[in-house]
Amino acid sequence: MASSLLSTPSRTLAPAPAPAGLRVRAPAQAHLPRGCPAPRRSRALRVRASVAIEKETPESEPPPTFLREDGRGAGSGSVRERFEAMIRRVQGEVCAALEEADGSGAGFVEDVWSRPGGGGGISRVLEDGRVFEKAGVNVSVVYGVMPPDAYRAAKGVAGKNSAAEGDKAGPVPFFAAGISSVLHPKNPFAPTLHFNYRYFETDAPKDAPGAPRQWWFGGGTDLTPSYIIEEDVKHFHSVQKQACDKFDPSFHPRFKKWCDDYFYIKHRNERRGLGGIFFDDLNDYDQEMLLNFSTECADSVLPAYIPIVERRKDTPFTEEHKAWQQLRRGRYVEFNLVYDRGTTFGLKTGGRIESILVSLPLTARWQYDHKPEEGTEEWKLLDACINPKDWI
Amino acid sequence: MASSLLSTPSRTLAPAPAPAGLRVRAPAQAHLPRGCPAPRRSRALRVRASVAIEKETPESEPPPTFLREDGRGAGSGSVRERFEAMIRRVQGEVCAALEEADGSGAGFVEDVWSRPGGGGGISRVLEDGRVFEKAGVNVSVVYGVMPPDAYRAAKGVAGKNSAAEGDKAGPVPFFAAGISSVLHPKNPFAPTLHFNYRYFETDAPKDAPGAPRQWWFGGGTDLTPSYIIEEDVKHFHSVQKQACDKFDPSFHPRFKKWCDDYFYIKHRNERRGLGGIFFDDLNDYDQEMLLNFSTECADSVLPAYIPIVERRKDTPFTEEHKAWQQLRRGRYVEFNLVYDRGTTFGLKTGGRIESILVSLPLTARWQYDHKPEEGTEEWKLLDACINPKDWI
Repeated sequence: MASSLLSTPSRTLAPAPAPAGLRVRAPAQAHLPRGCPAPRRSRALRVRASVAIEKETPESEPPPTFLREDGRGAGSGSVRERFEAMIRRVQGEVCAALEEADGSGAGFVEDVWSRPGGGGGISRVLEDGRVFEKAGVNVSVVYGVMPPDAYRAAKGVAGKNSAAEGDKAGPVPFFAAGISSVLHPKNPFAPTLHFNYRYFETDAPKDAPGAPRQWWFGGGTDLTPSYIIEEDVKHFHSVQKQACDKFDPSFHPRFKKWCDDYFYIKHRNERRGLGGIFFDDLNDYDQEMLLNFSTECADSVLPAYIPIVERRKDTPFTEEHKAWQQLRRGRYVEFNLVYDRGTTFGLKTGGRIESILVSLPLTARWQYDHKPEEGTEEWKLLDACINPKDWI
Repeated sequence: MASSLLSTPSRTLAPAPAPAGLRVRAPAQAHLPRGCPAPRRSRALRVRASVAIEKETPESEPPPTFLREDGRGAGSGSVRERFEAMIRRVQGEVCAALEEADGSGAGFVEDVWSRPGGGGGISRVLEDGRVFEKAGVNVSVVYGVMPPDAYRAAKGVAGKNSAAEGDKAGPVPFFAAGISSVLHPKNPFAPTLHFNYRYFETDAPKDAPGAPRQWWFGGGTDLTPSYIIEEDVKHFHSVQKQACDKFDPSFHPRFKKWCDDYFYIKHRNERRGLGGIFFDDLNDYDQEMLLNFSTECADSVLPAYIPIVERRKDTPFTEEHKAWQQLRRGRYVEFNLVYDRGTTFGLKTGGRIESILVSLPLTARWQYDHKPEEGTEEWKLLDACINPKDWI
């Protein structure tokens, strides 16, 4: 699930917002390969075909909260408020840890935006660092109205409420808050990580004013290596299991399988990576318990991932290893653009496109009919993507 | 429109078919960057999760025809027969001209396949040549049954028959033949070219045995440069206009606009490139005339494109030019995976995945929030993608 559930509409080529906030160290100039002069940003391109979508306003600093003051927002002690506080804390902690692991001093560039009717977000991106090719960590709070088909995309066909809700005519007002992140390291032996935790509420649909509000939690953390290093994969899955086991013994087996099922590239008959945990539409437990569970999962990202990156960031590699990593990045692009609910939802609803697509790697590769030789390390990875394993 | 309408189902990791045919000069080994040892191909990966889709059979040589002998196939003088002969002739001519322009001696690798019930295809791919990063030229003949939603995807919402046909319950038997090609040169000043010409027939749906058969032609040729060289763009569009004007003065303005409308990346509010011609569901003219028109269009590919490639293939360029080209290739990937009817149709119906996705570039790039500075050459290209122009 990419950042798109968590971002705000934009469809213009307006000037880029000035980087702002404590962690801004350098403007986003170092995007071209080393040695290339970076193009400056344009003032704005003429856009003749206007698109009637409310766009975000760049902000110079993150506000204390993106919530509306409507009794369920700031100062109310609501789940909305506590969830926003959690994801903003985690964003700060994850970015600080990644900067330390990167060690380049490049740092995250931050874009803050808000929407006139409430909501907003903070995108932080580190590109072309020493360790990370591209790392994006976004939080956002969205008040919106879903077109019915976007609502179905967001909740998915398998969502337990989707049949009842999706069949309702007319747009559905909703609140969504979440943190979403994809981390693509440079070293082919250091795996890509994705995590996303989000909280949804729908208002009563306009054509059914008495209907109850729906809420649900979703999210997950999953690992996408180019090469299997068993120690790393076991460590990653163990941390996920520990987080789950604190809440319900059924969670880990259920969410591990859900993750294998979700990150499935149907046209390839292979998974994007080696899984982790994934859940969606989760509302059949106590709301407080699920808030605590989401917090535990988000807090498990760093202990699950940083030790792996530290071990692998300087592993020697060949051009062949790098080319294989690039091919797997191509698969990552295929999954995100074709299947990922969050991305397709964001593209349909006009989410902030740069936040949605920050999940894509800096570089990717497609070769015609490439098949690794049986028994090679590349083959073993592909086999594990085709046939999911129990790693612990 | 990618090759997917024109390819056959496959969902397994079977051994790659041996390259075959006159133009095969080398097996597909040179996929990694220069200097990398190429991995050998596997025998087969274990696939535990079987997928119930009829798969193609590799053939050692192209057969005289892929048509069924059912009275509307080989030897009947039918439109099907003449269309197949045309696309196979054009495939040969285009590949020969591209090999000559490439000049590396690498040559196209050929995969031939057939399906038990009739139909088949020939994929030819040249990767990592001297001039071309990736060039794919596919023909295929497909007898199939469309699921209703794939049928809608294939015909598009705007198709004139789509409402009537798409609403019919049950799968729709169809015949499709076509040629599809994407050519990605290495030099950032040499544009990417795509062309695709196809002929469709639907059989009477099973639940309406008396209903008339539908037929239609579709296709187009479009240019996607990273930099605008007006001489080249004018030449390209002039050749398209000449081809159209031989048939109907309304064709060029109509199909030029259709092309601008079709290759639209909605979430970016920009076109993939600088257009050309595009048409679909074309059946409101004499069938012979449309066969001749499709032939004329396909025969116009080489005069439209080869002079441009010859002029630009050795133009000096910087790393910055290359990085911009890579970003535009990222947009190409976005369009093809998210919007292209042929690709989405092929992914849904289980088309031969390597043939469908050969349209993707060898390499692509995504940078966070990249915006070229106003007035630069990069900005001019982007502006022309946002605001389509009349080039002639």
